[in-house]
Amino acid sequence: MTAHRILFLVLDGIGDRPCPELSGKTPLESARTPVLDSLASGGICGIMDTIRPGIRPGSDTAHLSLLGYDPGMYYTGRGPLEAVGSGIQMSPGMIGLRANYATLDSGGLISDRRAGRIHDTTILSKAIEEGVDLSSFGLSIRFRSGAGHRAALALSGKGLSDKVSSNDPKKEGNKPLTVKALSDDAGADMTAGALNEFIRQSHEILETHPINKARKEAGESPANIILVRGAGVMGQFEPFPERYGMKGAVISAAALITGIGNAVGLETIAVPGITGSVNTNLQGKVQAALDTLESFPFVLVNIKGADESGHDGKPIQKRDFISRIDEHLMPFTQLDDTIIIICGDHSTPCSVKDHSADPVPVLIHGEGVRTDPVDRFTEALCAMGGLCRIQGHDLLPIGLDLVNLSKKFGA
Amino acid sequence: MTAHRILFLVLDGIGDRPCPELSGKTPLESARTPVLDSLASGGICGIMDTIRPGIRPGSDTAHLSLLGYDPGMYYTGRGPLEAVGSGIQMSPGMIGLRANYATLDSGGLISDRRAGRIHDTTILSKAIEEGVDLSSFGLSIRFRSGAGHRAALALSGKGLSDKVSSNDPKKEGNKPLTVKALSDDAGADMTAGALNEFIRQSHEILETHPINKARKEAGESPANIILVRGAGVMGQFEPFPERYGMKGAVISAAALITGIGNAVGLETIAVPGITGSVNTNLQGKVQAALDTLESFPFVLVNIKGADESGHDGKPIQKRDFISRIDEHLMPFTQLDDTIIIICGDHSTPCSVKDHSADPVPVLIHGEGVRTDPVDRFTEALCAMGGLCRIQGHDLLPIGLDLVNLSKKFGA
Repeated sequence: MTAHRILFLVLDGIGDRPCPELSGKTPLESARTPVLDSLASGGICGIMDTIRPGIRPGSDTAHLSLLGYDPGMYYTGRGPLEAVGSGIQMSPGMIGLRANYATLDSGGLISDRRAGRIHDTTILSKAIEEGVDLSSFGLSIRFRSGAGHRAALALSGKGLSDKVSSNDPKKEGNKPLTVKALSDDAGADMTAGALNEFIRQSHEILETHPINKARKEAGESPANIILVRGAGVMGQFEPFPERYGMKGAVISAAALITGIGNAVGLETIAVPGITGSVNTNLQGKVQAALDTLESFPFVLVNIKGADESGHDGKPIQKRDFISRIDEHLMPFTQLDDTIIIICGDHSTPCSVKDHSADPVPVLIHGEGVRTDPVDRFTEALCAMGGLCRIQGHDLLPIGLDLVNLSKKFGA
Repeated sequence: MTAHRILFLVLDGIGDRPCPELSGKTPLESARTPVLDSLASGGICGIMDTIRPGIRPGSDTAHLSLLGYDPGMYYTGRGPLEAVGSGIQMSPGMIGLRANYATLDSGGLISDRRAGRIHDTTILSKAIEEGVDLSSFGLSIRFRSGAGHRAALALSGKGLSDKVSSNDPKKEGNKPLTVKALSDDAGADMTAGALNEFIRQSHEILETHPINKARKEAGESPANIILVRGAGVMGQFEPFPERYGMKGAVISAAALITGIGNAVGLETIAVPGITGSVNTNLQGKVQAALDTLESFPFVLVNIKGADESGHDGKPIQKRDFISRIDEHLMPFTQLDDTIIIICGDHSTPCSVKDHSADPVPVLIHGEGVRTDPVDRFTEALCAMGGLCRIQGHDLLPIGLDLVNLSKKFGA
């Protein structure tokens, strides 16, 4: 009579504003969504401010909030979460940074901040991780590739600080900057010095690496310098299974989302062909969610393509991708013993080309869930639903209560 | 595609409860409001607890909250805000007090707490400000007239405290009280002593002033004593333009509201003939708002008459004034590049004759705003709107997000 599993589907950036290209409708309103609508019809709907009304969430802070970890307390910058997502085992106190492979020309200027949009830097990253020696600073490093030109750097050791600047000049044609301490404590000075030494040593390794020699010979931009940014100290997250009494898994193409999942103690489920874009393997993701629910009572699935369309300002692409998502969700309607939660993490209006604070639609479907008259999953109609207007940190507790894992406060 | 200006119209005390005199409708429900209704119809509506559900707001705390300054942190009593509103330049740490001109009879009793509802005390206030000398306390004073018998006093100097009582006996026919320290620190003792000296010296100045001689000869109550109350220390407000990235202006007849605006860094726009009452110059206010929007991207307009009718317990007057407001709002429907926010600051039910905690209706209209089915601006119908139920401190952040000035939290 009470479900025991939670399927938590985040449709990244799904919310929008009225689009002139869609006759004043939002992409979600103009998409064909019979499955989402049937789940809305059989469940309860609402709108949700992922952080608070009027606060524009990042995907990182939004997901922390949706997982019940107050971003005001737990968010320490994107670096450590990206590092976790790239596969680095981060312990509390370690410093994580986002990194880019870039191209330094013979005149000492950054000629390409993305190193010709290089793919697969795994071998280069291994060379850096093995070759760079920061023992004179008492530090050890981890360095892992992410998607495309992206990577993540982690520092461990004593006396570290995340109060350091970036070496990224932001604009091509400029010299890389020197990393500087942003606070006057000795830790920031030491960390900035260590990062400058990391950049120097990794440049030496990359400059002479056979892969870069081959790239130069082929007329491609060599990936011969690392730009670092977004330093943050890894926080201490109470593990999800202990916090909520259920183990869980995360399915996402985005290193940031799997990083957040891993940081809070969710296991990553790899799915071939997922891209974080509108060409992602939707069927593979849905099947992986169904399979994973056999062994994990909590599964977080993030589908990112609608967010990308919003950032690109493409309402028709966004509408069509939402319709495509819906076509693949049919198996979820057959799930038993499962509370299905579907929501956005933030709105990404095509007119804004960035995240906005407009609340996102949310639905909860499953055994024991109260229903309401809302029969379409749209921004406007969900606002008339039985959940009314909730906040992101409320959602998982509501779900946990529906699977009887909420602790009683009082007697 | 995104508006750049915010017109924030506060209909002071607009909310009400069902009135028997209006066949169980509220004044807003029974008023003729085609313009407000058309803005509601084209925008998004909701209800709002200006502070929190069940908390009866003052106009001061309500406006602080609407401007995004948490009154729990920023509200330090009405005195300093009234002082700012009366034109005194208040620096953080100064003490502000509300003041009344009153009448002390020859027997030493307060015979009229409003000095015969004297009008225009500018000359008397100037005489006080120039004549009172508190240098033996190491203090200097500012004293300015407000509307009618009202005025404001500010003290600056070292060691001040706002923990002091009032000299107002509250009931006529009693002796003025001695101001006392309400805390046992030396600052409170000194401040109380200084205030008693201020009252003594100002009484001497007033008693012999030609204006009061003339009043006595004309059989009018002399304005010969100052009653002070509401001592508060001026707080430090992060200036609105820095906090929100836009400069702003305030249009209001009430010194308290312009005082709050000035305290947070809004500029006051003077409008001839505005009274804070039902006879105010509505057309002048609306025109001033339109003009001010040309140079200020944020304009706060407060229209106070409905609040007065509520305090007076006059539902028909309140209804008719709301209809009159609506007749003057038509130009707002023609505004482009502007997010229009219309709300109450609190309810002032005619049956209560004071502020209540009943939530107020709110609407937001403009480019990019999601719509909902609500097509009348009333307490009951706005509660069915797409904003659902929000809190006062949420409203400006929602507006800022609609003009793309909300900062992203996270990445």
